[in-house]
Amino acid sequence: MEVEHTFTHKHILGLEQLSPDDITFLLRSAASFKEISTRQIKKVPALRGRTVINLFFEPSTRTRLSFEVAAKRMSADTFNISASTSSLKKGETLIDTALNLAAMKPDIIIIRHSHSGSPGLLAKHTKASIINAGDGTHEHPSQGLLDLMTVLEEKGHIEGLKVAIIGDIAHSRVAHSNIIGFNKMGASVTVSGPATLLPAGINQLGATVCSSVEEAVEDADVVMALRIQTERQKDPLIPSLREYATFFGINERVLAGAKQDALIMHPGPINRGVELDPDLADGPRSVILDQVTNGVAIRMALLYAIMGGGEG
Amino acid sequence: MEVEHTFTHKHILGLEQLSPDDITFLLRSAASFKEISTRQIKKVPALRGRTVINLFFEPSTRTRLSFEVAAKRMSADTFNISASTSSLKKGETLIDTALNLAAMKPDIIIIRHSHSGSPGLLAKHTKASIINAGDGTHEHPSQGLLDLMTVLEEKGHIEGLKVAIIGDIAHSRVAHSNIIGFNKMGASVTVSGPATLLPAGINQLGATVCSSVEEAVEDADVVMALRIQTERQKDPLIPSLREYATFFGINERVLAGAKQDALIMHPGPINRGVELDPDLADGPRSVILDQVTNGVAIRMALLYAIMGGGEG
Amino acid sequence: MEVEHTFTHKHILGLEQLSPDDITFLLRSAASFKEISTRQIKKVPALRGRTVINLFFEPSTRTRLSFEVAAKRMSADTFNISASTSSLKKGETLIDTALNLAAMKPDIIIIRHSHSGSPGLLAKHTKASIINAGDGTHEHPSQGLLDLMTVLEEKGHIEGLKVAIIGDIAHSRVAHSNIIGFNKMGASVTVSGPATLLPAGINQLGATVCSSVEEAVEDADVVMALRIQTERQKDPLIPSLREYATFFGINERVLAGAKQDALIMHPGPINRGVELDPDLADGPRSVILDQVTNGVAIRMALLYAIMGGGEG
Repeated sequence: MEVEHTFTHKHILGLEQLSPDDITFLLRSAASFKEISTRQIKKVPALRGRTVINLFFEPSTRTRLSFEVAAKRMSADTFNISASTSSLKKGETLIDTALNLAAMKPDIIIIRHSHSGSPGLLAKHTKASIINAGDGTHEHPSQGLLDLMTVLEEKGHIEGLKVAIIGDIAHSRVAHSNIIGFNKMGASVTVSGPATLLPAGINQLGATVCSSVEEAVEDADVVMALRIQTERQKDPLIPSLREYATFFGINERVLAGAKQDALIMHPGPINRGVELDPDLADGPRSVILDQVTNGVAIRMALLYAIMGGGEG
Repeated sequence: MEVEHTFTHKHILGLEQLSPDDITFLLRSAASFKEISTRQIKKVPALRGRTVINLFFEPSTRTRLSFEVAAKRMSADTFNISASTSSLKKGETLIDTALNLAAMKPDIIIIRHSHSGSPGLLAKHTKASIINAGDGTHEHPSQGLLDLMTVLEEKGHIEGLKVAIIGDIAHSRVAHSNIIGFNKMGASVTVSGPATLLPAGINQLGATVCSSVEEAVEDADVVMALRIQTERQKDPLIPSLREYATFFGINERVLAGAKQDALIMHPGPINRGVELDPDLADGPRSVILDQVTNGVAIRMALLYAIMGGGEG
Repeated sequence: MEVEHTFTHKHILGLEQLSPDDITFLLRSAASFKEISTRQIKKVPALRGRTVINLFFEPSTRTRLSFEVAAKRMSADTFNISASTSSLKKGETLIDTALNLAAMKPDIIIIRHSHSGSPGLLAKHTKASIINAGDGTHEHPSQGLLDLMTVLEEKGHIEGLKVAIIGDIAHSRVAHSNIIGFNKMGASVTVSGPATLLPAGINQLGATVCSSVEEAVEDADVVMALRIQTERQKDPLIPSLREYATFFGINERVLAGAKQDALIMHPGPINRGVELDPDLADGPRSVILDQVTNGVAIRMALLYAIMGGGEG
């Protein structure tokens, strides 16, 4: 007989704070919410009258949209604040911004910010529930959860799998949340990438650093290519995109050592032909678009759980 | 006895693809939806729980707003993506953007894009219904339909009317959709404008090219002035706005040869005193604001029809 | 026995146009709407199916958000137009923009514009109700009302209070609405600030100009620091922020002559350490965040009253 799990977190700051039971609960909840998006009337009244603010200090289309879709399908009222087009540049501190938003009595603030730790700062200073939608190089927990959900759907289990993550590990909050999440759920994680983009302490997070991509993907059940953030390459950490593609791009040759049915994953948007071969991105082992679909379901589950819907 | 028409189109890519029966159906449907916007409670549950994405790669206020108003008055959930303020510039292909949006299971994607044919591309690659809200110099079907609706309201019929369209025909998707639409509904269309702005094959679309504005508006029931897109005049196609106003601006003198009760139309925003005399824009024959009002009704009809509401 | 007040204003252009009875009515109405924001389901059906357009020609986060939150908690459909990211720069006149928006049959247009008097222009040319969300240096009536509400909540009455407003009085629509509002409700207002920022005719509005901050706050029940708009200081009206802070910044020393329980107010966003000492901003006498909370309630009351909810 299964014991019901009670989800007691008010905030979602990172996978670091969630237990394996929490994660299992969210993955199951998301699997059941996923069906709503297949209906003609994609709407349940679960969060009617709740106020959800999307506070994005970095440009984002898919993550912001995914949260907004999730919230509206739960009948919440949503509000978008984009720092690039708002008056948030008027020199106000982040805490003052948070306090001011909180004074309008939102239930949930979803924040993306270039500064690692800013969601935690908001959680400390407001009564609203905070969801981290990506903070600096720290965590991107909803991405980590949607990746876990996608792997679980495809493989039926996570424990015992081998997951290879390739690319700019040092600056990737996606990589950090995935390393934490897959480790908590019993998978092993290997990473590889340019030496300049592999942080010193990454093995303490639970990842094995490999000197070559081939070594990292050896026998892997999952191969995740990270996005090279070309728009941040003014002061480039890699010599050229062509050289990156040659040494760290995922293609059929690199995949030779991985399991036959290894899943191909990518957080998007893809630089086709740089970090991932286009044929692989569109091929039968790619679950990249399932990741996006599952993102909505995971975010519905998160919104619901932190609003008290998680009590079993 | 009237035979019911069944609307079977999933996408609205252009008036080119619609039959006269389709257009008649949409115009009647819009006429009945128009009443909703006059109510105190401007809302019907027809599209409750449907997901409608406004994906605008070019700046737009009125068209985006008109679609959003239409969708919300049908109770759909709406989402705005504006390329100029989003992360769509991160180098992703349009097809990848479309596939990613589609993975969130929208019912309808309304797209405006500078590239002619991009709505068709989306239609090919996603399961969502696509509405073209203006693609390059190709078509702007909802504008064409709202213009037809406005003329039908005022004149009681379209067949046999003479419609004159004046301005930059070559670059105007509004002109193209109108030429196609009025021809399909049995009106005749004449066009005039600077020689550099009259495309070679325009007569194949069904428009008679006139060398002077006076000749084009001779005996016209409808005179439509196109907007000179001054914001695109870095590499100008006309020598000066003053010269344009002198030779191609619509004023009382030019209208002398048109029918006494000729309607004055303009897709907006107006450059007052350039393509249209301010007194005419505000005068009794102007139906410019009716065009805007009818735009909401036409878009309600389009959203409803492609969601299956068109089955008779 | 209390006589019911009938609120008959269609537009909210300024506190200038409202009678003390109107203001009392709105403050009472807001006090009762405030409770809705404390509920789990923060939503009442009062304005269901109403169309509310936020038309912001100047960047704003908190005011736009506050109006949007207010409108959605009343179940209205809301639409945001931000001039900085829209096509409103295409050279259209403000009246044409207004006429076009009005043609889509909105119930309410909320406008912020750098030009004093623009909300009045809209009111003259459209059938929609207009709310001024800040016009140039003229008025910001919802801010004035939320300030009155906050003082009334804290002090129990407004009549007979002494209110000191410190800063750039000349350019502050917040100051103007507050001077008008507090005077109408029987309070007295003193102002102080750099000589260059004190307009000539301010005493005709009902404010006493004081040559020093200390004199202005003498015996004050309320001390309101205005924001120095550093982002507009390209052509600076004050020599330096440090000098401003020294002579006009509100701190404990300056407050020595004010009443012991004087309220500290600020319209936000705060330049901490410039116009207001951080310890005061966060201290027990500060009601700055109450102002924000009350802003939502006041805006709910305004939206409701102009839609006819004010009939007693």
